[in-house]
Amino acid sequence: MSEAVEGHEALALLERARESVDPLLRETVETLPLSLRGIAKYHFGWESADGAPAAAAAGKAIRPALVLASARALGGDPGQALRAAVAVELIHNFTLLHDDVIDEDPTRRHRPTAWTVFGAPGAIIAGDALQALAVRMLSEDAHPAARAASERLAACVIELCEGQQADCAFEERGPYEVSLDECLAMATAKTGALLGCACAIGALYAGAGAERTAALDAFGREAGLAFQLIDDLIGIWGDPGRTGKPAGADLVAHKKSLPVVAALASGTPAGAELAELYRGPMTGAAVSRAADAVERAGGRDWAQLQASDRMAAAVQELSRAVPDPGAAGELLILAEFVTRRTR
Amino acid sequence: MSEAVEGHEALALLERARESVDPLLRETVETLPLSLRGIAKYHFGWESADGAPAAAAAGKAIRPALVLASARALGGDPGQALRAAVAVELIHNFTLLHDDVIDEDPTRRHRPTAWTVFGAPGAIIAGDALQALAVRMLSEDAHPAARAASERLAACVIELCEGQQADCAFEERGPYEVSLDECLAMATAKTGALLGCACAIGALYAGAGAERTAALDAFGREAGLAFQLIDDLIGIWGDPGRTGKPAGADLVAHKKSLPVVAALASGTPAGAELAELYRGPMTGAAVSRAADAVERAGGRDWAQLQASDRMAAAVQELSRAVPDPGAAGELLILAEFVTRRTR
Repeated sequence: MSEAVEGHEALALLERARESVDPLLRETVETLPLSLRGIAKYHFGWESADGAPAAAAAGKAIRPALVLASARALGGDPGQALRAAVAVELIHNFTLLHDDVIDEDPTRRHRPTAWTVFGAPGAIIAGDALQALAVRMLSEDAHPAARAASERLAACVIELCEGQQADCAFEERGPYEVSLDECLAMATAKTGALLGCACAIGALYAGAGAERTAALDAFGREAGLAFQLIDDLIGIWGDPGRTGKPAGADLVAHKKSLPVVAALASGTPAGAELAELYRGPMTGAAVSRAADAVERAGGRDWAQLQASDRMAAAVQELSRAVPDPGAAGELLILAEFVTRRTR
Repeated sequence: MSEAVEGHEALALLERARESVDPLLRETVETLPLSLRGIAKYHFGWESADGAPAAAAAGKAIRPALVLASARALGGDPGQALRAAVAVELIHNFTLLHDDVIDEDPTRRHRPTAWTVFGAPGAIIAGDALQALAVRMLSEDAHPAARAASERLAACVIELCEGQQADCAFEERGPYEVSLDECLAMATAKTGALLGCACAIGALYAGAGAERTAALDAFGREAGLAFQLIDDLIGIWGDPGRTGKPAGADLVAHKKSLPVVAALASGTPAGAELAELYRGPMTGAAVSRAADAVERAGGRDWAQLQASDRMAAAVQELSRAVPDPGAAGELLILAEFVTRRTR
């Protein structure tokens, strides 16, 4: 199967997940108090800042798609896991709202971030409300897996918090003070955890036992780490026209992303050059020199290789959880999509 | 019974609740990842900023005490509601962490607030983790009431968010632009909701039906509003030595607290004087003149009368939920304590 065909299939899957989840997601967000609803609807891209209906680019619905595809792969009825898929999407968006405040990110999905429009307090409070909304979704769910899903999702949120806290701490440290292991652990907590949790919840809703649930969790985590590696590559070499962010955005922000830390840890002259650049302000010329240094220090190749390795590990976990290749197909397509995307 | 005796009984009740809840609360907080645990333990007063053990003044444990007393009042076993009491206390502290960031409050319980010590990102993230920890507590609770409690607590968090958002919005508005009704609704959401929810959860754990649960919720809400009115009086006339805050702290912050809004809405010359003062910076002399204006405009008397009225309403709701005065005794003592405290 060609990449183009796979990509097309993945987009169709994501589109279908978005269509399945959106009515319940919107209905749930509509139950928020008026003052918070506007912030949430702006963040989701459904409204402009003044409350007029909008149709901005929504998120890719990867997490809900993973919940539904995991349930289906293990013989469950994805329709029964809709509330859980919405809960996972709400958790994801709560973390986005807070991360944007914390990182002072000005844009998300090609639009000004919620905190720049409604203020940091509004974005913090709306994020808190989305976490509670996710909990309410699962508490109201009569499915026998809802309690285990809620427990798992809460544990995942704590892991996401740990990852975000580590990310903040890294930014305070000098160029040589973050090890590659710490950086991988941070990415696993910050990105892998929720993708793994989405898969595990889908498995729980299909009535899977502990072993298969754990294998699907591991599949999601590995795919999530691959996803993060690609995201970090895009943060340096992504096309601003497609990412909606300036070129080398992560370098400008002095981010200790995975390719950067790999380059710094390389012991090469290019790594030392990068460390020197990272000690100063990252303006136009410095950004392209830094990107070049990451590449010459092997950071770009390392990240690409790691992403492939993580994908291979994901595929192996998937075959443990879902031995039938036919049943595993959708999950495989989703995992390959997120690690091949260019934006 | 004299006030002193009642106060003594209430303190003993709160002390007992604190002793019941603390071991599980501490054990639960210990499960947080290291990077967040320190922030949480500092916030709870168990550690100093450098991680050394501390025994700073903890919160008054009013909410856990209400959970346990409500369960007992309705014939339940408070020991069965311990996890729920811890969950409520975690939610309360998550909101404190975030509110202090949002309001930029420098002190809490006579110590620098967590965000001033660990930075706003750390306090936001630790708060997020405490919300998740509360959810995990209830998800892991095998008691048949746990699901309904979780649903109720999540709905309550959304109401707390609504109240906090309204509070922020009021600060942006001019002296005459907040009505007393809006202000009462805000206080109900911000303070009444969680006290009501604590009582309702205690009722659920005692196996109470919808009607008694609703009456106990209303009891907690009314008592909570009385509590807020007293708190607002303390925010103007409290003794800095006891509150740990500067004199007239709420006036300095231009807070549209209940006595202030009542004074502004009074249509009196003193109310107009207050509005004029609130348009400028609140320095030393202006603070005492503003306090005086609130009093002359009737804001102080109004708040005291409202607090009494709310307490009367609370007592009425309590007698509906728990007709036996003997069984209702503890809840009554707690409610009267919180509305008579002077700090």
